[in-house]
Amino acid sequence: MPYISIESGKLSAEQKKQLIERLTAAASEITNIPVQFFTVTIKELPDENFGIGGKSIDEIKRNYERKV
Amino acid sequence: MPYISIESGKLSAEQKKQLIERLTAAASEITNIPVQFFTVTIKELPDENFGIGGKSIDEIKRNYERKV
Amino acid sequence: MPYISIESGKLSAEQKKQLIERLTAAASEITNIPVQFFTVTIKELPDENFGIGGKSIDEIKRNYERKV
Amino acid sequence: MPYISIESGKLSAEQKKQLIERLTAAASEITNIPVQFFTVTIKELPDENFGIGGKSIDEIKRNYERKV
Amino acid sequence: MPYISIESGKLSAEQKKQLIERLTAAASEITNIPVQFFTVTIKELPDENFGIGGKSIDEIKRNYERKV
Amino acid sequence: MPYISIESGKLSAEQKKQLIERLTAAASEITNIPVQFFTVTIKELPDENFGIGGKSIDEIKRNYERKV
Repeated sequence: MPYISIESGKLSAEQKKQLIERLTAAASEITNIPVQFFTVTIKELPDENFGIGGKSIDEIKRNYERKV
Repeated sequence: MPYISIESGKLSAEQKKQLIERLTAAASEITNIPVQFFTVTIKELPDENFGIGGKSIDEIKRNYERKV
Repeated sequence: MPYISIESGKLSAEQKKQLIERLTAAASEITNIPVQFFTVTIKELPDENFGIGGKSIDEIKRNYERKV
Repeated sequence: MPYISIESGKLSAEQKKQLIERLTAAASEITNIPVQFFTVTIKELPDENFGIGGKSIDEIKRNYERKV
Repeated sequence: MPYISIESGKLSAEQKKQLIERLTAAASEITNIPVQFFTVTIKELPDENFGIGGKSIDEIKRNYERKV
Repeated sequence: MPYISIESGKLSAEQKKQLIERLTAAASEITNIPVQFFTVTIKELPDENFGIGGKSIDEIKRNYERKV
């Protein structure tokens, strides 16, 4: 019954498969709750919809590229 | 003011309408809070982004089809 | 695997039991997904931590009582 | 480390930029936690997936237009 | 109907009041949606339950104090 | 900036430390995003507030004990 939610940028199919598999395995081992009780959801958000330090990832990337 | 969030796979317009209507009605009746104070959000996720027991729904469906 | 999350004020044990039971039953019927795949979580928040229209429930209740 | 999540209908790029910037700034000022520790996510949902008072925004808009 | 959720450490009653008031006001102004449609929830979490960079806030604070 | 949220029953301080550390490490490795950008929150819920298959964990445990 534990529930794990991951919010991130765009991911590949393989990365999503790995996240579900490995986060469930680690959390199951730590909590002693069998893997079959775990639900995992992954929400992929565009760079414009994710902010850190008051700036969107989109903006951070553009500023970074301008400097390089 | 209560807030209900539903995360699931792809749904039809009619299923979403029903979920909003009936979950609000049931929760309103149980909590004695008038329906107008309820907010409901529905997040539809691709099968690759939803895991149960460490496997994505996508993978579970493919394994199931292989067996049948 | 669908996941339903409810955020509300303080609830009785009976209200929580009913919410889990009836919201799962309604959502299962609407989505055609068996009840055993549903996870429900209930987050009870103090009146100070819940706002509507820019005011906390706590404040709304106090203003209301003052008027009565 | 505080985390702010916004769920709304469709927004423009400028609105999302403003939400990230101004909500982080206000919350940082109120909590005395530097802006760099804030994460903000914005989830844009279709009108069919957002309900208020047991009706979807989609339905509310259609009823409103019918009356006008 | 927009929904704003804030997750942070322990806050004072005044900080919570301010967060609800000012984040609603800013988001209302940016989205052109009247304040009365906004719901805000604040989840206060213990330092042990909040991690950044793989360490809990609790651990980060203890390491910091040790150095000073 | 990725955000991981874990909802479960009551956990020990050591389990929470491990969840933050190991889930961040695994997700960082899979996504190639440095650990310092990860935020993790853990919400511990009473057995009455967590449901699976339409029954609360509280009820499931009591039924189980009755049978044994």
